[in-house]
Amino acid sequence: MDIRTTFQQLDEKFSRFGGLEPRGITRLLYTSEWRAAINALVEEFENNDLEVIKDSVGNVSGRLVGENSNETILTGSHIDTVVQGGHLDGQYGILASLTALLYLKENYGQPKKNIEVLALAEEEGSRFPIAFWGSKNFFNIQDNEIIKELTDSEGVNFVDAMRESGFDFREDDKVRDDIKAWLEIHIEQGQILEKEQKQIGVVTGIVGFKRYSVQLKGEANHAGTTPMGYRKDTVVAFSEIVQKLDKKAKEIGDPLVITFGKVKLIPNVTNVVPGEIEFSIDTRHIDEAELNDFSKTIENTINEIAIQNELEATITLHLDEKPTLMNEDIIKTIEESSKKVTSNNYKRMVSGAGHDTQIFSQFVPSGMLFVPSIGGISHNVEEETDIEDLVKGIEVLAETLYKLAY
Amino acid sequence: MDIRTTFQQLDEKFSRFGGLEPRGITRLLYTSEWRAAINALVEEFENNDLEVIKDSVGNVSGRLVGENSNETILTGSHIDTVVQGGHLDGQYGILASLTALLYLKENYGQPKKNIEVLALAEEEGSRFPIAFWGSKNFFNIQDNEIIKELTDSEGVNFVDAMRESGFDFREDDKVRDDIKAWLEIHIEQGQILEKEQKQIGVVTGIVGFKRYSVQLKGEANHAGTTPMGYRKDTVVAFSEIVQKLDKKAKEIGDPLVITFGKVKLIPNVTNVVPGEIEFSIDTRHIDEAELNDFSKTIENTINEIAIQNELEATITLHLDEKPTLMNEDIIKTIEESSKKVTSNNYKRMVSGAGHDTQIFSQFVPSGMLFVPSIGGISHNVEEETDIEDLVKGIEVLAETLYKLAY
Repeated sequence: MDIRTTFQQLDEKFSRFGGLEPRGITRLLYTSEWRAAINALVEEFENNDLEVIKDSVGNVSGRLVGENSNETILTGSHIDTVVQGGHLDGQYGILASLTALLYLKENYGQPKKNIEVLALAEEEGSRFPIAFWGSKNFFNIQDNEIIKELTDSEGVNFVDAMRESGFDFREDDKVRDDIKAWLEIHIEQGQILEKEQKQIGVVTGIVGFKRYSVQLKGEANHAGTTPMGYRKDTVVAFSEIVQKLDKKAKEIGDPLVITFGKVKLIPNVTNVVPGEIEFSIDTRHIDEAELNDFSKTIENTINEIAIQNELEATITLHLDEKPTLMNEDIIKTIEESSKKVTSNNYKRMVSGAGHDTQIFSQFVPSGMLFVPSIGGISHNVEEETDIEDLVKGIEVLAETLYKLAY
Repeated sequence: MDIRTTFQQLDEKFSRFGGLEPRGITRLLYTSEWRAAINALVEEFENNDLEVIKDSVGNVSGRLVGENSNETILTGSHIDTVVQGGHLDGQYGILASLTALLYLKENYGQPKKNIEVLALAEEEGSRFPIAFWGSKNFFNIQDNEIIKELTDSEGVNFVDAMRESGFDFREDDKVRDDIKAWLEIHIEQGQILEKEQKQIGVVTGIVGFKRYSVQLKGEANHAGTTPMGYRKDTVVAFSEIVQKLDKKAKEIGDPLVITFGKVKLIPNVTNVVPGEIEFSIDTRHIDEAELNDFSKTIENTINEIAIQNELEATITLHLDEKPTLMNEDIIKTIEESSKKVTSNNYKRMVSGAGHDTQIFSQFVPSGMLFVPSIGGISHNVEEETDIEDLVKGIEVLAETLYKLAY
């Protein structure tokens, strides 16, 4: 078999499930498009004589049974997409895994350990306000109580949608103990590999992040009748905060990032000095201590500037995710495979986005690899990766699976 | 008669027209509340033996005829309010004028020149998107063609509303030539008098202003996967613009002001580097050359920062009003009256807000005086001025009218 042809045929086939030209793929959890993709995948596994394993919530895998069927190398990603997403985010990880498995099966026959391709039911949080439903169920750490309250944007209850789709809550609390390694290949969703012209990113960890919402209260005043010296202007204070923290983050350097993505002025009227502002801060780093230090800088800077400007500041930390480090042995194995397959054209890097792997790495030795994203674009119909890079990714994954399973 | 009692009775009476506790006064052009106020004012004029003059659009005045009836000293303000406005903006100017006239009539009898109290139909632009409908009609400089297209927020056409209310376009283009002076007393709508503990503001001019809308285009990127060095972050560029221009304006000093009142990020999502921003700039100064210089600084600063950050900037100047200076003789007359009545406790100042007087000053010698606004609040049910200050204002107005008309 030819890796490129096999992958392209699979990709073309699966991109139809939820695909809606020219608006990308919408394949939300427990919808008919999503179920059609699952069913097609099961059929694909069966046609290739793989053992099919399903759980109650919709995770499904195809296993090439090894000599020692008690040990499994698991590889995959999520099958759901965002609304109007691309054809690579999640789907590539599943189809690349299947292609690599078929390639290994044809060329090397039965492995020592099982190789199993896993499609996770949900990761994006795009239909219901909850993410990692697939991987959390895999390890039985989901919160079923919260789920019962959730509805989608059309008012459909999570549990109703799940049951109508033929799925249900887990009945047992058994967690598999055969998984010796988890691998996930994913598009980078950033521009680092592209800008540095590398073909593979060997992920050493997934950044931790903190998200704040900040409110500053001053005084709404008439833009004409209030001299500059009499103002308590929150947008001016905000701009000072942004300038200071942006400069500070750049001084500290990569991989620290800070983003002010959401801003709301009140009353938001041309001729009124804004008496109130609300804004978001998203900051990320792979090193927990560095992230904590910088978050203290953030809080101190806001409070200092608020005091200087006689404003009232309210800082709310509403998300606080710790960094996740990949398993050192798996990193090395992926790195050796990358060296060989790409003639050294790879880069060790951190993932700035969250992935199912951050759940897996809490329980089993885990590793992750990236292929470049053209223009860094994802979650969008324009999400694309050069086919040469997609194939290289599958080759590195196959090499890694070979080292781990044969 | 007692100035305080007379004014308070009038104010209590007229605050009922459109008054809706606890939400302030809503008295929009050509509504029943507005017409009730006009009718009550005509009745008030008649009961006090004043000659009533009405025009076709709804401006109405009461005249105390002087020995020389070809010369008129006109004093007044607008009778309309904003939505949920206060009881002083506009209304105080009319009722203070009427109180002053009645005081002069009782104490000094017939003046040499006519003294005429004018209630202008509309100034706020709160029902239809057009302002100064009253004063512009007074001088026949309104644009009747634009009016025909206007509707209010409920879809009612301007002309239909006008006609249903019993009013209509001007039929003649005769402009009165008897006006020898125009006076307007108004609340300051700022905090300068309050903070400097002055009772009267002698207005020397009304600031000119420019309003820009600015758009910056960069790149929307993932907040996690895009290192700081790879970003084209428009909110960071915006914050640099705000910091530079705010500092520069403070260096130049009063009465220059700059306000960034309205900001919109696109896509405005916590985990996306904002690829686009739109914001407003409102800048004002009494000196036309200074205002023009600073607007060049604004444009240059935006363009420089856009280039440094590799952003595309679009700067649109959509309002450009020249400053208006008051008549020197009238300023002096008001100043002398203020000196006498307040024992020197007044301040020469510019008006940072627009007023009907900026229309009048283009045609007749004009002057304006302010009373303090508590906390600078206006356009709000909490708009208030100490009764002592309101009375002082009427006394200064009466003294000025006496000097001009007797």
